[in-house]
This record gives sequence, C-alpha cells and structure tokens, in this order.
Amino acid sequence: MRRTSFARWPCSIARTMDLLGDQWTLLVLREAFYGVTRFDRFQVSLGIARNTLTERLDRLVGAGLLERVRYQDRPARYEYLLSDMGRDFFPALAAIMRWGDRWLDDGLGPPVVLRHTECGRPTHAEVHCAHCHGALTRDHVTIEAAR
Amino acid sequence: MRRTSFARWPCSIARTMDLLGDQWTLLVLREAFYGVTRFDRFQVSLGIARNTLTERLDRLVGAGLLERVRYQDRPARYEYLLSDMGRDFFPALAAIMRWGDRWLDDGLGPPVVLRHTECGRPTHAEVHCAHCHGALTRDHVTIEAAR
Repeated sequence: MRRTSFARWPCSIARTMDLLGDQWTLLVLREAFYGVTRFDRFQVSLGIARNTLTERLDRLVGAGLLERVRYQDRPARYEYLLSDMGRDFFPALAAIMRWGDRWLDDGLGPPVVLRHTECGRPTHAEVHCAHCHGALTRDHVTIEAAR
Repeated sequence: MRRTSFARWPCSIARTMDLLGDQWTLLVLREAFYGVTRFDRFQVSLGIARNTLTERLDRLVGAGLLERVRYQDRPARYEYLLSDMGRDFFPALAAIMRWGDRWLDDGLGPPVVLRHTECGRPTHAEVHCAHCHGALTRDHVTIEAAR
C-alpha cells in the first residue's frame, strides 16, 4: 500500500502521525510504557507477528523513541528502552487513553487505571493550559499559524 | 492490506487507534477542529483523494466523532460537524501536537500556535493528574489492571 508521507507537513500532528500513526507502532510504545523491554515479551504481550514487531521496533528506534541496548554478549541480545523522547510521549498517550476510557469503554469502565504516585490516587489525564492551568478544550482555544 | 482489529482489546489506546489510527483520519479530524465543515474544503486543505476523504469522513461519522448534517435541499448538500465525542478529542490532539512541537519541529519552532481564550496567552497542552493537578509523567504513574 502506498503511504503519503506527512513528515514534512507544517503540522506537529501530521508529523507525529507519520511516525506513530499505525496501530501497532503505538501499541509497541504502550508496552514499553508498561515496562516491556525485550523482543519476546513484546511479541507475547501483543500477539504480533515477529516480522511486524521487528519493523515497528526498528521504526521506533530510528525515530528516536526507543534505544536498542545490548544486555548480553554471547549470544548478542538487545533490549529496547524508552529514550527521553519516548518517555515524553506518555502524557499524550495518557490523554488518548482518557478519551478512549470515556467514549469507548462499552459501559464497563476503564480497563486500565493510572495511579499518580505523587498523590497516591487513581487518576486520569487532564489537559491544561500551560499558563493559567485552565482546561484546554476546543471551545477555549483559537488556532493560529505561527509563521 | 489486512488489518488487525483492536476494537475489542481491553485497552483504551488500542480501541482509540482502531478508530483513528490512520494518518488521514486524524488529519481530517484536525481540519474539523480548524473549523472546516464541507467536503470540498477538507479536500483542498488536505490535498486528499476524494474517495479517501469520503471513506475517512464516513468512518468518523460512523464512529460518532462527526455528524453529517444537511445544509441545503436542492441539490442535497451536507456538512460535517464535530459531535461532543469529537470535540472531546481536542485535549488529546493538543497533547500530541505538543509532543510533535517539542521533538519534530526541526528547530523552527511550532508551526501552529494555540491561544487560550480564557487567559489570552499563546499556550500549549500540559497533562496533569485529575486529582492533585501535578504533572502526569511516566515517572510519576503506576499502571494497574482495573478488572
């Protein structure tokens, strides 16, 4: 299938989706956030074909979200660790999760709960203005070209 | 191309990506947030093939994020308006945008700026704990199965 490349569009959403906009890629990243680091664990957790997993891990390493680190020499074995760039995607993933919890839970409640270790409470993502910390909803935002 | 369906996975990220996990779908949604409502405007803004656009609009309407509303009778013409479910995705989109702004801007700064009308300032998304309002980063969260 031919894919349009959005990598150079002047839009951070398009560029992000160019990197991550594939279900498997984001689910591999989710597993990394769950603490998975090794190929076989990714494979079992996701039930993903090995060649598909290899491609998605390579993509995430190439993009800089995961780092491939050798943890054994004979035979050579590698694990996949979140980089700063990868860890920094967590808030966005939590915001996506929150939306799915609200709208796609089939009335059963969230399947996964985040607990904020700072306050100890089960929580979810809320998206706020970086300045006044008010809720950042579509109704309270205008969108402007920056350049 | 065969697609694995993630719709029934017990994971709000998987379910969300099942709905939106395609570059074009999310970009059509982005245009809706920019205020685009009509087929031809979506088409011109995105430079998307008409059949691809039709399929993505139908997907967003079927999923409940957009509503197809007749605005003219002869000939019948329709526009696409964000539903409550669709509007509620804005915070997640803003969080994705923020990540792209930080990591994929090629040193040129964000291509698009959000202005928060409540405080009047150019802003970006910050993701906070719903309880204590502290930053919700991976380092300050544990992830638990809910059921």
